[in-house]
Amino acid sequence: MSYEPIWLKKATLPGKPGFSSYIPGEGIEGSIERELSVLHDLREDFVWSVMVTEALPEEGYEILVGDGKVDILGGSKAGVLYGIFDAMRQLILTDTVVPVSERPACPLRMLNHWDNADGSIERGYSGNSFFFRNRELIVDDRTLFYARLCASVGINATVINNVNVHEDATKLITDEYLPKLREMAECLASYGVKLYICINFAASMQLGGCKVSDPLDPDVIAYWEKAVAHVYEAVPMLGGFLVKADSEGRPGPHTYGRTQADGANMLARALAPYGGKLIWRCFVYNCSQDWRDTTLDRACAAYNYFHPLDGQFDDNVILQVKNGPVDFQVREPVSPLFCGMTQTNLMLEVQAAQEYTGQQKHVCFLVPMWKDVLRFHTYAYSENDRVRDIICGAHRKSENCGIAAVANTGDDENWTGSDFAAANWYGFGRLAWNPSLSAEQIAEEWAGLTFGDDKEVSAVIVKVLLASYSIYERYTVPLGIGWMCQPNNHYGPNVEGYEYDRWGTYHRASHSAIGVDRSSRGTGYAVQYTEPLAKLYDDPSTTPTELLLFFHRLPYNYLLPNGSTLIQHIYDTHFEAVDELRSLIASVVTVQGLIPEKEYTRIMERFAMQLASAKEWRDRINTYFCRISGIGDAKRRKIYAVSEEDITYPSDADPEYTS
Amino acid sequence: MSYEPIWLKKATLPGKPGFSSYIPGEGIEGSIERELSVLHDLREDFVWSVMVTEALPEEGYEILVGDGKVDILGGSKAGVLYGIFDAMRQLILTDTVVPVSERPACPLRMLNHWDNADGSIERGYSGNSFFFRNRELIVDDRTLFYARLCASVGINATVINNVNVHEDATKLITDEYLPKLREMAECLASYGVKLYICINFAASMQLGGCKVSDPLDPDVIAYWEKAVAHVYEAVPMLGGFLVKADSEGRPGPHTYGRTQADGANMLARALAPYGGKLIWRCFVYNCSQDWRDTTLDRACAAYNYFHPLDGQFDDNVILQVKNGPVDFQVREPVSPLFCGMTQTNLMLEVQAAQEYTGQQKHVCFLVPMWKDVLRFHTYAYSENDRVRDIICGAHRKSENCGIAAVANTGDDENWTGSDFAAANWYGFGRLAWNPSLSAEQIAEEWAGLTFGDDKEVSAVIVKVLLASYSIYERYTVPLGIGWMCQPNNHYGPNVEGYEYDRWGTYHRASHSAIGVDRSSRGTGYAVQYTEPLAKLYDDPSTTPTELLLFFHRLPYNYLLPNGSTLIQHIYDTHFEAVDELRSLIASVVTVQGLIPEKEYTRIMERFAMQLASAKEWRDRINTYFCRISGIGDAKRRKIYAVSEEDITYPSDADPEYTS
Repeated sequence: MSYEPIWLKKATLPGKPGFSSYIPGEGIEGSIERELSVLHDLREDFVWSVMVTEALPEEGYEILVGDGKVDILGGSKAGVLYGIFDAMRQLILTDTVVPVSERPACPLRMLNHWDNADGSIERGYSGNSFFFRNRELIVDDRTLFYARLCASVGINATVINNVNVHEDATKLITDEYLPKLREMAECLASYGVKLYICINFAASMQLGGCKVSDPLDPDVIAYWEKAVAHVYEAVPMLGGFLVKADSEGRPGPHTYGRTQADGANMLARALAPYGGKLIWRCFVYNCSQDWRDTTLDRACAAYNYFHPLDGQFDDNVILQVKNGPVDFQVREPVSPLFCGMTQTNLMLEVQAAQEYTGQQKHVCFLVPMWKDVLRFHTYAYSENDRVRDIICGAHRKSENCGIAAVANTGDDENWTGSDFAAANWYGFGRLAWNPSLSAEQIAEEWAGLTFGDDKEVSAVIVKVLLASYSIYERYTVPLGIGWMCQPNNHYGPNVEGYEYDRWGTYHRASHSAIGVDRSSRGTGYAVQYTEPLAKLYDDPSTTPTELLLFFHRLPYNYLLPNGSTLIQHIYDTHFEAVDELRSLIASVVTVQGLIPEKEYTRIMERFAMQLASAKEWRDRINTYFCRISGIGDAKRRKIYAVSEEDITYPSDADPEYTS
Repeated sequence: MSYEPIWLKKATLPGKPGFSSYIPGEGIEGSIERELSVLHDLREDFVWSVMVTEALPEEGYEILVGDGKVDILGGSKAGVLYGIFDAMRQLILTDTVVPVSERPACPLRMLNHWDNADGSIERGYSGNSFFFRNRELIVDDRTLFYARLCASVGINATVINNVNVHEDATKLITDEYLPKLREMAECLASYGVKLYICINFAASMQLGGCKVSDPLDPDVIAYWEKAVAHVYEAVPMLGGFLVKADSEGRPGPHTYGRTQADGANMLARALAPYGGKLIWRCFVYNCSQDWRDTTLDRACAAYNYFHPLDGQFDDNVILQVKNGPVDFQVREPVSPLFCGMTQTNLMLEVQAAQEYTGQQKHVCFLVPMWKDVLRFHTYAYSENDRVRDIICGAHRKSENCGIAAVANTGDDENWTGSDFAAANWYGFGRLAWNPSLSAEQIAEEWAGLTFGDDKEVSAVIVKVLLASYSIYERYTVPLGIGWMCQPNNHYGPNVEGYEYDRWGTYHRASHSAIGVDRSSRGTGYAVQYTEPLAKLYDDPSTTPTELLLFFHRLPYNYLLPNGSTLIQHIYDTHFEAVDELRSLIASVVTVQGLIPEKEYTRIMERFAMQLASAKEWRDRINTYFCRISGIGDAKRRKIYAVSEEDITYPSDADPEYTS
């Protein structure tokens, strides 16, 4: 498969040695040399030099500019590379370089690939894996270019296999894969990207001949000590393991009555002698819920399991927490684990793969959503701490923290299926480096790097990106309720698709009301938060509108702060968002000819799919709510209810429908 | 795979030559000899003799009994075989033989297997195919025993491959398969069963190198003439073809602007020189409907396509019509094609495979449902004609008519997965022979043949069978509405599962009402019927209760003839049916020990699945309707609505809730 350099389009010079085909063993020095020659080609009149200095933080860099001379100093060779890419970005965007001094905010800036050994990708929307094909690891020029793209936005770690570790991938820690894994690790390391792998918690049984995978069993402990030693002998630069345990059918410590801390610490202790980190996912919940059981609330699960264990995890354990309490819905509150785990290393997990956000057929720039999470005040340590402070290690002074994104890449030529989706990969790296960057700035950078310096094009692309998440949210699931998508594939609307299933994903809509009461009067989820958040979320009148139905069960005629009823708000947002999408598409049409034809065609093909899907969302959501409530749209737009006798229209003159 | 003789358990004598392993070439004479020896073993003191006489109708027989001597006369060798099996049935059930004179009612008594060349079975619930394995045809002792079971209940024709003819099965008409197909045909013929195959309407393109499959194209016509000649050269005893065209993605004449008659007649003319029949399915509808389009009604489709063509089909064409207008739902009205096609040969298609009726996990004896269809007055020819008269050729004096069942068999040891499901195979054959047999008589025969002559066991088995369809109907879909099952696999409840899909399967439930108005005031489906049916179905007050929601859209508080409201009826039937199922299971427990342990265990395992599924149906259906209507159960049984404030309870004293 061929591939495009996306945002490094102007920094890919054909004929550079080692550039279009990977030469093992060049190391990071080779990459620095290569990228310096790129800089030189971009501005031949500048004199470029680089230096490593201990005076800078390890991954930090400083660019000094004077008199046609640019010095790039790094705290390490990786720091130098980051400095080079900063200069490159500046050159492409502005044709010059200004001095900067930078260091990354998050210690770990990581991608999680859900790639399977057979070459498929779980929740992949851009082709097959470029790490695996037919149960074999692949290291080639694409691997190198992948590492280069990561480094160019500051990503320093990657997990190449799916957290659901099936049969074949279980053997990644055996001699069947280790020699190739070493090659992979070296290739990635040549751009400062550390390799991590997901392991199977039951490997002690499946590979080690143990009778159990009980983390307190001496045989199991011995198995892992030996297995980890063997892995590090072959791949000494390995970063560590990522583990999904006791989750959605994956084995884990709960099977043996052990805690999540028992499970994580056992593995962490095996890794510790080699400096390895153990990243443990908090995505633990009962996935065989009986829908009839209203006492169980999946949103409460992670906090209930992990909060009592705060302080019990070893220092090289990092708990990886999804941004919300459930599962990457379009809108969720920030996970209360960020409010309640002050004695534990935490990492934030977001999803660049657009599982619930349009599957890279819909444009959905996720940086605004991630920004909301990063700037969220947790009140965990003080009044002013935010999620971004926690994952940057501001309070615990630890390097064992950071941010991970479920990757949105595949072997499609343009890496991400949708051209716009590449902005999420780019934006994730930039935010991980500096969570204070604005969504606007990131969008502008990416647009300029990807589509060139035409101001008109850039303005359109930036407008599309910045509007996309809000539009997507409004034509899909209303008010934070979530889960109104097709079961299994998660694409397109199905209001009752998950309503009676085993996944703990219910809205319990009736003729009069909708939502799960997660307040102190209901499942109590709201009071897992620190104050004043708990109080805020416990009361519908102080809960942010966009999360209203996540926290509360409310009647359709509930009056929102904007003066609309809840149901009229649903209609309004759905109609308006589709109209806005149409305008966005029209604005891209105005720059046809200014965007290369291939990209333009690809973009328009996806827009056609998005628009059809958006209308389907609008019509199904509106029809469902009109049928179940019997309340019509005050503005009399087209809804597919059955008969007019079925519907009561609110008076148009009614002040509550003025929005 | 081993297999059980099911209802011929007592008539399987080990050591009979050719009995446990198929010897090709013995022909029907070999079968007569073999079965006579079985009769002899059952009553050694009787003198058995057989004779073919032209004085009897071809497939008819007469059993003469006198002085320890039994003469079995047949109008053909097949007639003799049927007589032998009649005597065998009598012996097993009563230990003696009384004189009878019989002839089959339906000329064609056929099974349709939906077996694929790769060995899988579409909608198969009892293992894999025993006709195909790994793209090869299999002819072995199981084939012979299958033919024997068919003959023992009078089935005289079978289609061994799926109506959806995929890549491999398209080649059944080529030399790759023909030699083996000949063996298969001979094996089946040795028990009087004629082989038919499904063909791919696009074979002229896929195999014949034609540019089209237009039935009026000379090249296509020539292709089929040649192909059919070639097939009959190899397999002269072939019965003909069954075709699914222009349906659910299958190719057909509509692609070329031709009618269904054009398509069918073209093939029929190629078959005519060899006496072959062309069976053409009427299952034609738009399967890409936009749910927003309420003008389209799938129920109307078959009649709209075929009724205008009445009289245009060649005599060796038989139109195969599903019992209902939609697709084998638990309850449908009889297809109006049986009322409106007086100049065309018709065949009834029912489904023994329990696709929508519990997938052979639930006990569902379908004979009562089929009886309802067979005795249905069509008013097509006269006031007294029934479906059974039409498919027996009473009016058109044609042999080109009959009945087909989608088979429920597979390579499971007991053939049908569920032991009880074998009663549907048995019952289908018996009804095809004599549509006037009662469900009770068929159930009693089958119970006695299968489980022996213990009166207690027999009584329990008969009770289970006879109650099962009504119970299944009542805990699943109410009042003929249909389609409240899981999409794709069709097992278990999902009230809105098909509501917004492309299959034309909508109930359009709202807060106040449910159903599609198919009366003259709605889609007009009801008036496709002859009078007085059209008038009957056009009015809710004269529409049979069990079909009410098939024909009408009605409010939840609509008063049924039994005095219940529509919604209370839903609650009552769902609660009561689950309770009745529990009693049925309890009654089988009372005969534990009297049923062989293997069968008993198998039965109880399936009952456990059925009960869990029935409760899920009850709770999801009741909860859905309670939530959407806001009306509670007058008897205050457990429904999983969310909050009591949501619900209005009708007064218990209210006379309309007395049922």
